[in-house]
Amino acid sequence: MAVKVYGSAYASPKRVIVCLIEKGIEFETVPIDLVKGEHRHPDFLKLQPFGSVPVIQDGDYTLYESRAIIRYYSEKYKSQGTDLLGKTIEERGLVEQWLEVESQNFHPPIYNLTLHVMFASVLGFPADEQLIRESEEKLGKVLDVYEERLSKSKYLAGDFFSLADLSHLPFTQYLVGPIGKEYMIRSRKHVSAWWDDISSRPSWKTVLQL
Amino acid sequence: MAVKVYGSAYASPKRVIVCLIEKGIEFETVPIDLVKGEHRHPDFLKLQPFGSVPVIQDGDYTLYESRAIIRYYSEKYKSQGTDLLGKTIEERGLVEQWLEVESQNFHPPIYNLTLHVMFASVLGFPADEQLIRESEEKLGKVLDVYEERLSKSKYLAGDFFSLADLSHLPFTQYLVGPIGKEYMIRSRKHVSAWWDDISSRPSWKTVLQL
Repeated sequence: MAVKVYGSAYASPKRVIVCLIEKGIEFETVPIDLVKGEHRHPDFLKLQPFGSVPVIQDGDYTLYESRAIIRYYSEKYKSQGTDLLGKTIEERGLVEQWLEVESQNFHPPIYNLTLHVMFASVLGFPADEQLIRESEEKLGKVLDVYEERLSKSKYLAGDFFSLADLSHLPFTQYLVGPIGKEYMIRSRKHVSAWWDDISSRPSWKTVLQL
Repeated sequence: MAVKVYGSAYASPKRVIVCLIEKGIEFETVPIDLVKGEHRHPDFLKLQPFGSVPVIQDGDYTLYESRAIIRYYSEKYKSQGTDLLGKTIEERGLVEQWLEVESQNFHPPIYNLTLHVMFASVLGFPADEQLIRESEEKLGKVLDVYEERLSKSKYLAGDFFSLADLSHLPFTQYLVGPIGKEYMIRSRKHVSAWWDDISSRPSWKTVLQL
């Protein structure tokens, strides 16, 4: 039975879909229109009480939070498709560390940029220009640390592609595209090479074509 | 060899310490004074390039980000001390889901309350009263979802204490103590019983006495 992924048009659900493709897991998508407020519908809130996407349904198992879902499938199908967790417990520790860096350091400023540059007008609120400037500055400092790290290691957690890299794909795609700040990637040599590498994976190209 | 934990006076490192106690792992603490700016010292930035606590050193293995560290030790010593990850991959998935809810939904507003109610004056910036009000309101909505969840399940991920519960201890302790908003816990019957349960664990009492 295919895994149902709710909200596939948005960035966080794409984190799940690219993982399912890397693992060779069959899925189907269920659209949820956030602009129309479908995430506030009582039926959806029964699946995800905070009203966020994604949610997956896999038989009678329901799970939400994109980074929890990608850990679940990477562990459940450890030996199927791409191994995304590292070979040892110590490698997995570093995958978790950089996945947390993505969540705690990288995500908040890039989320603010996404919301205020891409979605303010469609959602009907004024873009906060000061927040945009501050977020760009914060994100730049995070990417400076990435540049140093990626000068010593091909991927974030080591010399292997992992969930830590994969988790950056959807919002970085916004950054270099509709947010219009590709310079933040291109002005950093190692970050730029890393982005070219991870964004040219067949799994991500498939997601972009969905 | 004992695990070295840097920054033990602060909330996020306490997340690591309570986990190490639950797992029966020997540790020693290394103080880092954030008010004096010791987290910006070049030697510390070599360990943690973002200038945050905690960091652990375990022999020649260094790891940062509290939620990555607690996952690492819970998995490495799965059968030692309290099992904090659940018995099956599906239970682990739910532990990960609620650990992500803590990180993405619960943490941002309670961190803002901590910063602006407890630390604004000592760090020398004016408390943002509007942010305090908004954070309290956001946190209340998150706790409403917890109340519903905990009316059906003793702990967040199921009928077993896990990393998902443990991860809430340090900042909730601030909330009911120095932040002065214990009513947010006590006005919700099931959240209140859950807090009494998890905060009375011997591991947490030990952390409070350190």
